[in-house]
Amino acid sequence: MAHKPHVAVVLAGCGRGDGSEITEAVSCLIHLSRLGATFACFAPDAPQADVVNHVTGKPAPGERRNQMVEAARIARGKVAPLASLDPERFDAVVFPGGFGAAKNLCTFAKDGANCTVIPDVERVVKAFQVGGKPLGMCCIAPVIAARVLGKASGGPGCTVTIGDDAGTAAAVAKMGSTNVVKGVIEAAVDPKNRLTTSPAYMYDDATPHQVFEGIGRMVEGTLKMVRSAAAMPG
Amino acid sequence: MAHKPHVAVVLAGCGRGDGSEITEAVSCLIHLSRLGATFACFAPDAPQADVVNHVTGKPAPGERRNQMVEAARIARGKVAPLASLDPERFDAVVFPGGFGAAKNLCTFAKDGANCTVIPDVERVVKAFQVGGKPLGMCCIAPVIAARVLGKASGGPGCTVTIGDDAGTAAAVAKMGSTNVVKGVIEAAVDPKNRLTTSPAYMYDDATPHQVFEGIGRMVEGTLKMVRSAAAMPG
Repeated sequence: MAHKPHVAVVLAGCGRGDGSEITEAVSCLIHLSRLGATFACFAPDAPQADVVNHVTGKPAPGERRNQMVEAARIARGKVAPLASLDPERFDAVVFPGGFGAAKNLCTFAKDGANCTVIPDVERVVKAFQVGGKPLGMCCIAPVIAARVLGKASGGPGCTVTIGDDAGTAAAVAKMGSTNVVKGVIEAAVDPKNRLTTSPAYMYDDATPHQVFEGIGRMVEGTLKMVRSAAAMPG
Repeated sequence: MAHKPHVAVVLAGCGRGDGSEITEAVSCLIHLSRLGATFACFAPDAPQADVVNHVTGKPAPGERRNQMVEAARIARGKVAPLASLDPERFDAVVFPGGFGAAKNLCTFAKDGANCTVIPDVERVVKAFQVGGKPLGMCCIAPVIAARVLGKASGGPGCTVTIGDDAGTAAAVAKMGSTNVVKGVIEAAVDPKNRLTTSPAYMYDDATPHQVFEGIGRMVEGTLKMVRSAAAMPG
């Protein structure tokens, strides 16, 4: 193809407990650059649902942080408001995981299968899926696709992996989508929705390198779909 | 060797502007686990020198953050106070970069060649060097070795790379150590001090994958020295 694939990466803070999981987000960026893609990072210019002390695992009372300002720590300053993400300018979109995906981008952490997804995320997921542009997600982020594209929301239903967590898999089913169990270094491919997912730290005791390797499969799958679309006539 | 190399990783917050550079820290952890080492993360249980808004690059007035609590975002909660780092329990030590290394672990960002290094970092660097245990550092962190081990401080002098930044190289020389220019995907090896360094984001326009690759050389060099020591008789 003539141009490098250009990929939007959607972050939601900085840290597994209240934002984007850091190893997952960095693994996405490393693999995108390794595989010859360019990327731009986005996050909601809005407060995090909460701030968690990552030593104690407990909320830090009275603290407030902005998702985009914190995501800039991962993106080395280069992050734009999610509201400005124009799907026409990108070939694919990637969502790392972390509780930020389930607390800030949607309400899954609180509401499970009855969660709502913030309007900008719903807009972006639908635009890429309808436009036939690949989506890549890992860890808990696939519940966003399961909700937005699920039959319970009037969508076509999608197939994802969130690993082997029975409760999360049941919620995916209730939203009218399907979970397939994959190991930490594997990815699940849904060719119909052009959606590739990997469990990452849904396996809490995974090593950093296993997470990196699984996300490599997810990013490879996503870019392979970009390139196969680009090769198609007209 | 019989046991897996066990490596201490010294962090100083979470984010390039006021803590540990995130891609660098994560790359260290991924390569350590990829190469069969185990690791434990440490950070000073003390306030950061400042808090920087990573969108604007400017200080966030009135905000205070603790280095260890923020480092826990990178380490997924598993971080201990630097004061508790017992060099006897580790085969090597690794310092990622970021301004935290030059603002929180020492005062290089403010004082250049006349910087002071916090006592716990000086203790750790000296203990590993005197004990013949390998040290790995990247980005701006090698200025810590250049200071602690430099001839100006009564040490033996060491050889590092901080890339090709002339001002930083001059400060390294003034501290009685030597800079060798290396590219972003390279590492410099000082066999006498068992010190391996890589420039990482000292090249500001490096891609995430270049930084990951250079840090891979640094971690490989560090673990190779661990294994060569372990293979020596008695």
